[in-house]
Amino acid sequence: MNIVPIVNTNDAVVPPAEPNSDLQGVNVISVKDNDSLAARLAVEMKTDLLIVLSDVEGLFDSPPGSDDAKLIDIFYPGDQQSVTFGTKSRVGMGGMEAKVKAALWALQGGTSVVIANGTHPKVSGHVITDIVEGKKVGTFFSEVKPAGPTVEQQGEMARSGGRMLATLEPEQRAEIIHHLADLLTDQRDEILLANKKDLEEAEGRLAAPLLKRLSLSTSKLNSLAIGLRQIAASSQDSVGRVLRRTRIAKNLELEQVTVPIGVLLVIFESRPDCLPQVAALAIASGNGLLLKGGKEATHSNRILHLLAQEALSIHGVKEAIQLVNTREEVEDLCRLDKMIDLIIPRGSSQLVRDIQKAAKGIPVMGHSEGICHMYVDSEASVDKVTRLVRDSKCEYPAACNALETLLIHRDLLRTPLFDQIIDMLRVEQVKIHAGPKFASYLTFSPSEVKSLRTEYGDLELCIEVVDSVQEAIDHIHKYGSSHTDVIVTENEKAAEFFLQHVDSACVFWNASTRFSDGYRFGLGAEVGISTSRIHARGPVGLEGLLTTKWLLRGQDHVVSDFSEHGSLKYLHENLPVPQRNTN
Amino acid sequence: MNIVPIVNTNDAVVPPAEPNSDLQGVNVISVKDNDSLAARLAVEMKTDLLIVLSDVEGLFDSPPGSDDAKLIDIFYPGDQQSVTFGTKSRVGMGGMEAKVKAALWALQGGTSVVIANGTHPKVSGHVITDIVEGKKVGTFFSEVKPAGPTVEQQGEMARSGGRMLATLEPEQRAEIIHHLADLLTDQRDEILLANKKDLEEAEGRLAAPLLKRLSLSTSKLNSLAIGLRQIAASSQDSVGRVLRRTRIAKNLELEQVTVPIGVLLVIFESRPDCLPQVAALAIASGNGLLLKGGKEATHSNRILHLLAQEALSIHGVKEAIQLVNTREEVEDLCRLDKMIDLIIPRGSSQLVRDIQKAAKGIPVMGHSEGICHMYVDSEASVDKVTRLVRDSKCEYPAACNALETLLIHRDLLRTPLFDQIIDMLRVEQVKIHAGPKFASYLTFSPSEVKSLRTEYGDLELCIEVVDSVQEAIDHIHKYGSSHTDVIVTENEKAAEFFLQHVDSACVFWNASTRFSDGYRFGLGAEVGISTSRIHARGPVGLEGLLTTKWLLRGQDHVVSDFSEHGSLKYLHENLPVPQRNTN
Repeated sequence: MNIVPIVNTNDAVVPPAEPNSDLQGVNVISVKDNDSLAARLAVEMKTDLLIVLSDVEGLFDSPPGSDDAKLIDIFYPGDQQSVTFGTKSRVGMGGMEAKVKAALWALQGGTSVVIANGTHPKVSGHVITDIVEGKKVGTFFSEVKPAGPTVEQQGEMARSGGRMLATLEPEQRAEIIHHLADLLTDQRDEILLANKKDLEEAEGRLAAPLLKRLSLSTSKLNSLAIGLRQIAASSQDSVGRVLRRTRIAKNLELEQVTVPIGVLLVIFESRPDCLPQVAALAIASGNGLLLKGGKEATHSNRILHLLAQEALSIHGVKEAIQLVNTREEVEDLCRLDKMIDLIIPRGSSQLVRDIQKAAKGIPVMGHSEGICHMYVDSEASVDKVTRLVRDSKCEYPAACNALETLLIHRDLLRTPLFDQIIDMLRVEQVKIHAGPKFASYLTFSPSEVKSLRTEYGDLELCIEVVDSVQEAIDHIHKYGSSHTDVIVTENEKAAEFFLQHVDSACVFWNASTRFSDGYRFGLGAEVGISTSRIHARGPVGLEGLLTTKWLLRGQDHVVSDFSEHGSLKYLHENLPVPQRNTN
Repeated sequence: MNIVPIVNTNDAVVPPAEPNSDLQGVNVISVKDNDSLAARLAVEMKTDLLIVLSDVEGLFDSPPGSDDAKLIDIFYPGDQQSVTFGTKSRVGMGGMEAKVKAALWALQGGTSVVIANGTHPKVSGHVITDIVEGKKVGTFFSEVKPAGPTVEQQGEMARSGGRMLATLEPEQRAEIIHHLADLLTDQRDEILLANKKDLEEAEGRLAAPLLKRLSLSTSKLNSLAIGLRQIAASSQDSVGRVLRRTRIAKNLELEQVTVPIGVLLVIFESRPDCLPQVAALAIASGNGLLLKGGKEATHSNRILHLLAQEALSIHGVKEAIQLVNTREEVEDLCRLDKMIDLIIPRGSSQLVRDIQKAAKGIPVMGHSEGICHMYVDSEASVDKVTRLVRDSKCEYPAACNALETLLIHRDLLRTPLFDQIIDMLRVEQVKIHAGPKFASYLTFSPSEVKSLRTEYGDLELCIEVVDSVQEAIDHIHKYGSSHTDVIVTENEKAAEFFLQHVDSACVFWNASTRFSDGYRFGLGAEVGISTSRIHARGPVGLEGLLTTKWLLRGQDHVVSDFSEHGSLKYLHENLPVPQRNTN
């Protein structure tokens, strides 16, 4: 009837409270305030959910504002540990106690309750719609307790487990990874059985390419195990490597050493083989890890995660890797900035973009776009160009390092080289889009591009004409995404000019754009490709999962001794650093 | 009268349009739609501002959505270049043309106009209040044109100037810095004159310590020049340094080299001496630079910036460093994520926190908190402790690397060592706050701490008792800010355990917390101290302003040759890297 009734206790006419039965029975609650009135109404009307809006975030386990106070996401009446009732100081606010009592009474009567803050201005939506959509807002009172720990508890376990992992010997971390590789082959049957369940449930609901990505096989598991052993081998030199040593003064020595970043959140789509690989990378770099996989791979992910924990437990660090319950929204995870140090989305560039948008205050490692260019110089070799263009565009057009825009020097128009490129593209069935300048040179031009800043990710290519190396560079700076850009030329001077001036993560000379890849670069395992300018840039190996810390060992050194009238002078003498293992 | 009249043209009764005078004269506009009605009403009522809300962001210089379309922040009717009127495609939307015509008519009549998007959900506030507060929203139509370029134009100049700067020889960059150092002493009189103006204007409006920070002197300029020459010396080895070389295959060689990050935005408070220092750091690292100084230092900053540009122009890269007009809000700058790669706030930790909050998608380098701990172990040397505590707490308590919490092993309570520490703190007039455990051990305790997570920044110190190294580490992990933490002990095993396990940017053994500083670490010039785990961590020198790019030089290499059935195999042979200059 489009009517929202408002019922309010702020009225002179209230029945007297029933003594001694207050809040005790299922059917009796004396109405003293809006909280008890709301609980009574909710239960009598058999509602599913009662929302109690307050001016605090919800129920805290200690007085809000104290050092240890944490918002309780879900409260179970059976869970005695969470909060002590009756003592006002533990609950935090006087008014909160009445709300909690009313909530518990309503819960007994079959109505779940959310206590949340109704005073926040929201970016989009509203607290009520957020609650109705099941988002994590305020404190949810529920009879049903989930089996596992909360994501906050998982974050703490990953943090402390990761810290323990980081203090193991490199050989011990390698041992864990080798053990995980063994388990992948030894427990093959169990893994494939779980994977079969996922495939059966996904049948008909997922498209064929997605089903293929979801499916595991003996050969996939074998090559996964081989990859893991490579990670184990490359992990020896990662954590605790000394990057810099300085003698600051007599008996005062400074060391900069590599350490893990902390806790990583890795979000991956349907491919369950991602899990052991990411786990091995985290173990090798000594990081705690929160894994969030796709719902469609639940069974596979669960067993693979158990195996990772089994491997970790040989050195007592089982908890360093946590699989986050699929009920947690990715968006909610991206907001836990005190718990997570780096987010790594592994999947489509759409996934990366979504995560970058959702992440609040947590850095995201990844590339949102790969608009790669190849500039064919007037002095390019006829033999090389076609090969390079074909490999860059056609070998795997969906990859982020595939070619999107071909820049051709004007002098090459209407030459045999030009015809050769076009013929090859026809044979490979590449759809050509003409840049405005290219179109103006042709009598009958292919369709003009909508935007010179397009990532086709398919057998489509934009061709544009430029007058010089400099114009090619300007075009790349204007329309590129600073991912990978290539010059094809026999003129070394032009090539070096291009290499120095193009401001991209990867700049190549006479090589396919597709080399832009951690494995091909020889970085061992690849975490991903980053187009960020901060931290890791380009293909990222294990080093992208490390940061540094500074260790200073003195005797009783104080800075005032080094002041203008002090007795000491800074030496700042660089000391030799152990050389890196070169194969 | 608390009445908001609503006047609307959507009515059957509209006077006929006056032919041929439409939008021409100052007093004539035919009312055909709400735009012209609003303009007419605004002018007749002599309003200061007309706000036209639409469903697009404002006026673009090309059709919105096209590659080059940019929102025009401020539109001046005298400025012919910005937009072509009359052709609908240039203005973007049909409806926009009517709005722009009405806006121009209103402007002639003396009313300024903002065209903005009224459909955005806002985090806080509302588009109308934002406009009234003078924030940068939509397109502002104004008769008054500011003298200089817009901040967007400055960003582009910094980008291209920085790119040119990066391709100079290291010697040329050093030359520019030396020249700037010369100018600081040669043009001393002009600089001090400008500074005097700032001081006179600030007189009575700024507190004494701030006035002191604002003031320049001959000796300040001299030591500034000396510092600049040091930066010039240390800049030789920064840009273009080869970090890694790999032979991927025959004639296919990969190099990872250091390159500048791109465009830095440095925000600094009253100290004008910051400007030449930051400029020199940007020049040394080949970065473009946007500088935003405090309003109170306008005159000083202006001349210092002119000198920086004069120095830059000896190699034709004058525009690499831009001083942003004081009218731009810091918050607006922090939103220009396509223009700025890194924000460096130099000033109080409050400034850093504000910037971190305001920055949308741009990384911020800095430390928001410095809660530094010193753990006095049961095996600490009596002689050292007092010295180390005094230096850490009392030498300069406002610094971020000053001591905030002293953790004392329980065995030391009621020992002469303990009394010695307390006596020293009394002499130095340090106010003591007791942690809960410490308080429980004392008969008469000092006031108990409100929070163990406090940065006092003053002569105040929290003391807490722990039972072991492990408990000290746990305390630091729980309440610290991962800045700088120290152990005082003669037990090497305990010290190494602490150094390995404490997860902070700087971890020291028997040394004052105050060593946590770029100059003291021997990093040359300091950019700041970072408590981030990504990119730079701890005291940051020139290296924090660099990132890397990958250069690959091949002949005609394609990845398909390396496939399973291809003719080539990856070599991945690490090649020697030129050794870093060790003094």
